[in-house]
Amino acid sequence: MSAAYIKSVIKTVPNYPKAGIMFRDVTSVLEDHKAYSQTIALLLKHYAPMGFDKVAGTEARGFLFGAPLAIELGIGFIPVRKPRKLPRAVISESYELEYGTDSLEIHQDAVKPGEKVLMLDDLLATGGTMIATATLIRRLGGIVEHAGFVISLPELGGEQRLLDNGVTSFSICEFEGE
Amino acid sequence: MSAAYIKSVIKTVPNYPKAGIMFRDVTSVLEDHKAYSQTIALLLKHYAPMGFDKVAGTEARGFLFGAPLAIELGIGFIPVRKPRKLPRAVISESYELEYGTDSLEIHQDAVKPGEKVLMLDDLLATGGTMIATATLIRRLGGIVEHAGFVISLPELGGEQRLLDNGVTSFSICEFEGE
Repeated sequence: MSAAYIKSVIKTVPNYPKAGIMFRDVTSVLEDHKAYSQTIALLLKHYAPMGFDKVAGTEARGFLFGAPLAIELGIGFIPVRKPRKLPRAVISESYELEYGTDSLEIHQDAVKPGEKVLMLDDLLATGGTMIATATLIRRLGGIVEHAGFVISLPELGGEQRLLDNGVTSFSICEFEGE
Repeated sequence: MSAAYIKSVIKTVPNYPKAGIMFRDVTSVLEDHKAYSQTIALLLKHYAPMGFDKVAGTEARGFLFGAPLAIELGIGFIPVRKPRKLPRAVISESYELEYGTDSLEIHQDAVKPGEKVLMLDDLLATGGTMIATATLIRRLGGIVEHAGFVISLPELGGEQRLLDNGVTSFSICEFEGE
């Protein structure tokens, strides 16, 4: 299992979604079976010993890594979704974007008090969506201390911001000024 | 492995997203590890002998079943997404909704000519999104003859509509007039 191989597969798209941004395209991992299965295996190796009760993945790219990891860990998966996507009673949490705000929702019965929940997403940038996700889970009585990512962008400060919110992060590979 | 168990886990939400609709909530499968892993195992048992090259899953719930299945089958995964979500060059296909149209996109390099692609989604209703997905894959030279689902709603005619488009469907469980 090699994080370097996984990093080598990730394509960079310059000036997407706007000028000056070097977009790290995690879909290139999905299309390469070896990279995709190694990504899940590395996450499994890191998180299996910690004894989680559920994995929470954030719409939509978080589903792609969180769902297979939950199956491998032998635990349930919580979809964290954009507004008006979940059919049953939800709780909702807003977070700030560069311009304006957005919000995320989970089902009210998705977490039982005391359950240990691992958060999973494709990429750690500023950490805003993960902090909103942690808040949702904690409002239902769940315990959230860990968040896993395929990619992190250390220059954007997400790791420290998560630590300030009681969440330790782990990522398969980092991109910094490349 | 039991399809009856999986069906028993699926919650029905009356009058969602509008009056008169009995919404079959596939997120209840995700939250129950036994049901979720059995779902992937039943899909694997059905599709493993057929020798696919890739699985295509449609945003966002198709990711939840297609991605783990691709990993289990040992092949790559193609995310089929709503407009302006994929970062590289795409092709796009429109399909009709009850009111108006929507469209789906895949990366231009997602499929190589001659590759056999299995389509996966959570629920078969009228089949519109699957026919649009099949069209995208065929425009890139891929071969699409099969689509798998967790749930099908036979009254809506999707199975026949897919057959008319050269696609055989398989689902774990059916809901009909319940």
